Amino acid sequence: MTQADFQIENLGKCSLNTPIRDMFFVDDKERVTYEIDPGKIGKAPLSFERAGVRKKIFHDPAWSKAAILTAGGLCPGLNDVIRALVLSLKRYGVPVTYGIRYGYRGLNPAHGLEPILLTPELVDAIQNDGGTILGSSRGEEDTAVIVDTLARMNINILFCIGGDGTARGAHAIAQEIKRRKLKISVIVVPKTIDNDISFIDQSFGFATAVLTAQEFVTCAHNEAKGAYNGVGIVKVMGRDSGWIAAYATLANPFANYCLIPEEEFQLEKGNHAFLPNLLNRLEQKHHAVILVAEGAGQELFKKKTIRKDASGNILKDDIGQLLKSEIANYMKKHNVEVTIKYIDPGYTIRSVSAIGEDAVFCTLLANNAVHAAMTGRTDMIVGHWAGEFTHVPINLATSSRKKIQLDSPLWSCVKTLVCF
Amino acid sequence: MTQADFQIENLGKCSLNTPIRDMFFVDDKERVTYEIDPGKIGKAPLSFERAGVRKKIFHDPAWSKAAILTAGGLCPGLNDVIRALVLSLKRYGVPVTYGIRYGYRGLNPAHGLEPILLTPELVDAIQNDGGTILGSSRGEEDTAVIVDTLARMNINILFCIGGDGTARGAHAIAQEIKRRKLKISVIVVPKTIDNDISFIDQSFGFATAVLTAQEFVTCAHNEAKGAYNGVGIVKVMGRDSGWIAAYATLANPFANYCLIPEEEFQLEKGNHAFLPNLLNRLEQKHHAVILVAEGAGQELFKKKTIRKDASGNILKDDIGQLLKSEIANYMKKHNVEVTIKYIDPGYTIRSVSAIGEDAVFCTLLANNAVHAAMTGRTDMIVGHWAGEFTHVPINLATSSRKKIQLDSPLWSCVKTLVCF
Amino acid sequence: MTQADFQIENLGKCSLNTPIRDMFFVDDKERVTYEIDPGKIGKAPLSFERAGVRKKIFHDPAWSKAAILTAGGLCPGLNDVIRALVLSLKRYGVPVTYGIRYGYRGLNPAHGLEPILLTPELVDAIQNDGGTILGSSRGEEDTAVIVDTLARMNINILFCIGGDGTARGAHAIAQEIKRRKLKISVIVVPKTIDNDISFIDQSFGFATAVLTAQEFVTCAHNEAKGAYNGVGIVKVMGRDSGWIAAYATLANPFANYCLIPEEEFQLEKGNHAFLPNLLNRLEQKHHAVILVAEGAGQELFKKKTIRKDASGNILKDDIGQLLKSEIANYMKKHNVEVTIKYIDPGYTIRSVSAIGEDAVFCTLLANNAVHAAMTGRTDMIVGHWAGEFTHVPINLATSSRKKIQLDSPLWSCVKTLVCF
Amino acid sequence: MTQADFQIENLGKCSLNTPIRDMFFVDDKERVTYEIDPGKIGKAPLSFERAGVRKKIFHDPAWSKAAILTAGGLCPGLNDVIRALVLSLKRYGVPVTYGIRYGYRGLNPAHGLEPILLTPELVDAIQNDGGTILGSSRGEEDTAVIVDTLARMNINILFCIGGDGTARGAHAIAQEIKRRKLKISVIVVPKTIDNDISFIDQSFGFATAVLTAQEFVTCAHNEAKGAYNGVGIVKVMGRDSGWIAAYATLANPFANYCLIPEEEFQLEKGNHAFLPNLLNRLEQKHHAVILVAEGAGQELFKKKTIRKDASGNILKDDIGQLLKSEIANYMKKHNVEVTIKYIDPGYTIRSVSAIGEDAVFCTLLANNAVHAAMTGRTDMIVGHWAGEFTHVPINLATSSRKKIQLDSPLWSCVKTLVCF
Repeated sequence: MTQADFQIENLGKCSLNTPIRDMFFVDDKERVTYEIDPGKIGKAPLSFERAGVRKKIFHDPAWSKAAILTAGGLCPGLNDVIRALVLSLKRYGVPVTYGIRYGYRGLNPAHGLEPILLTPELVDAIQNDGGTILGSSRGEEDTAVIVDTLARMNINILFCIGGDGTARGAHAIAQEIKRRKLKISVIVVPKTIDNDISFIDQSFGFATAVLTAQEFVTCAHNEAKGAYNGVGIVKVMGRDSGWIAAYATLANPFANYCLIPEEEFQLEKGNHAFLPNLLNRLEQKHHAVILVAEGAGQELFKKKTIRKDASGNILKDDIGQLLKSEIANYMKKHNVEVTIKYIDPGYTIRSVSAIGEDAVFCTLLANNAVHAAMTGRTDMIVGHWAGEFTHVPINLATSSRKKIQLDSPLWSCVKTLVCF
Repeated sequence: MTQADFQIENLGKCSLNTPIRDMFFVDDKERVTYEIDPGKIGKAPLSFERAGVRKKIFHDPAWSKAAILTAGGLCPGLNDVIRALVLSLKRYGVPVTYGIRYGYRGLNPAHGLEPILLTPELVDAIQNDGGTILGSSRGEEDTAVIVDTLARMNINILFCIGGDGTARGAHAIAQEIKRRKLKISVIVVPKTIDNDISFIDQSFGFATAVLTAQEFVTCAHNEAKGAYNGVGIVKVMGRDSGWIAAYATLANPFANYCLIPEEEFQLEKGNHAFLPNLLNRLEQKHHAVILVAEGAGQELFKKKTIRKDASGNILKDDIGQLLKSEIANYMKKHNVEVTIKYIDPGYTIRSVSAIGEDAVFCTLLANNAVHAAMTGRTDMIVGHWAGEFTHVPINLATSSRKKIQLDSPLWSCVKTLVCF
Repeated sequence: MTQADFQIENLGKCSLNTPIRDMFFVDDKERVTYEIDPGKIGKAPLSFERAGVRKKIFHDPAWSKAAILTAGGLCPGLNDVIRALVLSLKRYGVPVTYGIRYGYRGLNPAHGLEPILLTPELVDAIQNDGGTILGSSRGEEDTAVIVDTLARMNINILFCIGGDGTARGAHAIAQEIKRRKLKISVIVVPKTIDNDISFIDQSFGFATAVLTAQEFVTCAHNEAKGAYNGVGIVKVMGRDSGWIAAYATLANPFANYCLIPEEEFQLEKGNHAFLPNLLNRLEQKHHAVILVAEGAGQELFKKKTIRKDASGNILKDDIGQLLKSEIANYMKKHNVEVTIKYIDPGYTIRSVSAIGEDAVFCTLLANNAVHAAMTGRTDMIVGHWAGEFTHVPINLATSSRKKIQLDSPLWSCVKTLVCF
Repeated sequence: MTQADFQIENLGKCSLNTPIRDMFFVDDKERVTYEIDPGKIGKAPLSFERAGVRKKIFHDPAWSKAAILTAGGLCPGLNDVIRALVLSLKRYGVPVTYGIRYGYRGLNPAHGLEPILLTPELVDAIQNDGGTILGSSRGEEDTAVIVDTLARMNINILFCIGGDGTARGAHAIAQEIKRRKLKISVIVVPKTIDNDISFIDQSFGFATAVLTAQEFVTCAHNEAKGAYNGVGIVKVMGRDSGWIAAYATLANPFANYCLIPEEEFQLEKGNHAFLPNLLNRLEQKHHAVILVAEGAGQELFKKKTIRKDASGNILKDDIGQLLKSEIANYMKKHNVEVTIKYIDPGYTIRSVSAIGEDAVFCTLLANNAVHAAMTGRTDMIVGHWAGEFTHVPINLATSSRKKIQLDSPLWSCVKTLVCF
């Protein structure tokens, strides 16, 4: 991966006379190593540009016009990121920042959606509200139309806050910009409540999601204990990876089962099947809580066709409902009374505001996105691992999803806490 | 209503030599007026015995054995009530208090459920947990069998914490006890998260329920604003009365529609129909939040048969799902894009722990239940209005439900805040 | 108390053609009884006008200019009240509502404080923030100057949200207005986090204060248990009455001592002294939590002079610090190691936002204040008891403070839960 | 640093036949690099043993007796760590785990403190409570006496949860054990709410502390805005480093000043003094919030003698009180009215329970402490950085404190958000 891949040419046009009070400049040659293998000393490991303020920037702030959009599902911290982008751009001296309404849709004039002028005053306290003040949407818009809009509006910096689908859209836009030889930076601030984007050790909103999910596990536990052979099922986000489920299990000892997409399981058959195990627990304890990621157990459905949402995500069959009916049937078959309560807190988990360190992370992430944009980087996402922010090309970041390794200490630790 | 109706004979057998530090004795003749009509000065209004400590009590504490059960759905504060009952009985000097498992079921030996011995140590911190440490259940057990159990176990005081169904069960038990000329007090601590029991101006758990519901309204609002023409639907408890919905609307200005069982509405037809109103709002504001009580709009279903749960409550058709599909259809018909998020937080609202004044109310309510029991009162619930606790005969308390009056200042105030 | 005492003459000038959707009109003759004595049937008890919408109002909404100010210390719910006043005035059709900055000070032009124009948009979400958007202050301003300002600005409705001192100021203003024969309504929305205003069974913000205080008691308990002979002291608001302390004790069983202004106590001397009792508890349990109202134990200070704050409130000596040092000395004298943690959460308790029913109460209270103002009532506060809102003349409301009766069931119940 | 320094001899006595379900074994040769300098490829960087389950362990679980103690000040997560240690030891098959009361004191029989037998049942839900169920203390006990006790009680594994002072005590104990040629593992679980222990990128409890501090900043802001020229001062933990203050500032935009020990400042003199800056802000905004770490500005005190607490920590002069009086004086001198509210939430921040990822971290940290102990490691703390847990010798870990670098991106980012 060379710098040229995600930098606009003529980089370092104007030098930064520190209107911002960052005294810590990063040299373009500084790199952050990814996945060190200590056995291979002597060989250069995979590494990426270190993010941060540069002495020389590309876009002249005084002549810049930035735009921000949020796309895909809600996630705690969206408003924190928007706020920090706006304030950081202001510190560079960028006079105009537009908020694009409802994701990419707001860049297609056919929808007639006026942008919002994002001032420091307007964004001053938005971080206390969950959701996104810009609105969001799923689905694609014509890349050429979007680039037409950017060019017509003289936008030279575009921030796309979103997940995989959004990043792929941003990549297409950046490619089209390159083809047209325009000087527009496209920077992705990676958003995934599932925590499954590669090159981000923990995505914004995830910590808050774990916190919130934990509370619902307690509710499920109270419901389960409140009835004879009570079973509480809590479905949490996690299409392809079970990070929220795993972390919420570690955070809250009331979760007795943790089902994630990475680990297939059998309902009834085999030596290590779920339903007999649950029956055994009910006979001993008379209550159980099941924490299940939405993408878990998809192999249990007899699928004819694959359905997708507007973002291109494969729609998962409802594993919570499947478990509910399968447990009911199985227990009935074995003459075991059972009371099942199914809790699906997805919309709640994702629509609260980010708190504590999660909010801190949003601020730092956004700041580094602005630093990158001002230097003329483009077609990149802001990465983070081992305490460092980095520049990662979009097509690399979207090439694979981060999953829980079943032989990792993390998953091993989860398994010691659950029944199954 | 005479005292004899809910008192064991030979009242006032032993006098209380204040092992409890209550210095405030209530005279048996003190009464609390219910619904004063100031226009009718001179005529005695409906009134009830004032609750509180009596100088003379009936059950000799040293020889007493008390039992506590919780029945019906969960409600914030159950453990607070259990805890306060246990501690209050201890202060009277009652040596043994049993916790009956899973409602009335725990009094039928056929189920093989052992009671828990409830000590002050065991209940010391249970109020921090939602749910009930005793477990609960719906459904009836044979009254004769229950009375057999009480007699066999030498229980002379039974506290039933529960709603309408539980109270009717307690009344049957009290009647059977009377027939058998046993000296067992049966006291109901009224529980209804719907807040619909008469003679209780506000039931325990209700304040916490409003608080919790309010947070889900905010989440629904964030979801609704996050999408173009986003609609958030929040369904809250309220089979026959819309107290939670009304209070949560007053507490949280993000609720744009408040639908309750007391006020029928039309979806499409008529001058004042819901769907055209919503369409109008979406065209203006592009988002809306609908707060709906579970018992609202039942007239919109074409019902063939009435289904009931094990407690005898009529099962409501899912108004939230109906609204979701009707809105989707209507907007499609009118070519209006809409994104609907349906949140059903029922299990969460009812399984959190009671806080603040709600916890205070649980303690006071339970104390007065114990005071009543010790004097030999029976077949009664503890009532509360205008700041006073009272003794109310069960059959009177269950004769009608408390509903929101559509011409009340409360409902008028709600209507000024919503669109419809 | 006759109506004339707190009504502007020529009452009922214009009739309300319901721009507001309140369908529930209250007749001027309706009254709410205060303190019924059931023994005296036949004699009219003390009663007050029932609050609510009237068919005929005095101030012509279209020509009205209202003003709102907040004075005295912070209290949860101030912004809820401001918001509901603004929205309710808007529904009547009042075109202009000013927010006066920093209490009465904002009505004295010498301070150069410009009012804020309070629009529905501006107040839309302020209830989520604690504090007051208007700012507050203590201290008096010249009544004549204030009335000059009101007259010059053509303000015909003034809402003063504040406590005793604020109410006395409002009374003086109303009297001066009367003298000048102006037609300006002065309505007080009573604020007291201490919950000590008469004719208000529970003041706004109090429920939230109890909730918040409860959390600090838990912290004090954790600190106390964390050290050998650990003692946690939590001081809460309550100059003259111990309502917060009493309720927080009932809500949180971790409070072992509840010291309030209404009950004097001895530190060392006498049969029932505090320090020996605490020593005894430490020897048995090795930890203790003391919840103390700021006005408790003032008799323990050797006072030379009485100090007052700008509102005229007598400044209390710091009972928390006194207890801390007295406990330390006493335990040292008795060779008992002790670790004392003193927590003073006053500013935190009063600066959070009101939640749940507390927010509901603010809305209803403010609505009734507007209803009263529009009818031309003046020199009154909005009262509340037994579920009804009322009109209470200011001078009556400020004539006495509400205190905890030591022989009440409430205090008896507190005493059964604590050691002392 | 060689392994021999912190391992008991004869390592790897018995091989683990996986009673615990960890399937992920770590080889003794695996190391985690600390501070990679990418410029020096080819040279082995500083690295430490990777923590985790080993195939061969030293202590035979069936014959082991473990003990756990907590020392120093409270910190969120103590009970999470205790709980996870107990459960993890149980999974290895260790039959007896003692809870030592009140830190090292509980190992000196002179204090007569009986240990608690820590069973899985006993610790099942303790993580919901703040504080420590074991109690804590500051101060030293005679090392020889402690080792006598460990030997007499046949304890072969000791976990010390504590900070710098506790770690130094543990090092002395481990050295004495080595001298006596005993086979007792001493493992430190590092606790520091200040987040200032080296080789731990973020210590347990810190995330929760930031979260809690953030709420107090909001309260201070509400108080500050509520008065004309209102100033809120919030003092947070941070004797030698300002991590909590810096993170809370990033998390909560209401903090206008962030004062930390790492950055000296002048009150009045010089070009960049605090008080003139504050005056300037008050004149513009009329309110300000100051977040100050307890160790900040110590150079402003004229110190005669250094005072230390029982743990050997230098007692800081109260910078909050100093600021309060200096601000008052300065503003008076400049005829600027000011209302100052000083909030000191230390006891509250540290006594709440750990939540979310903070709780997850406690569990993982404790598990790795147990893994290390079972292999016979001793005289070590469990470290953590870049997502990996490590073994770090105590004397290295206590050799320096982690501080905020004033030229770091983190502090640069803080500086862009504050006025000073």
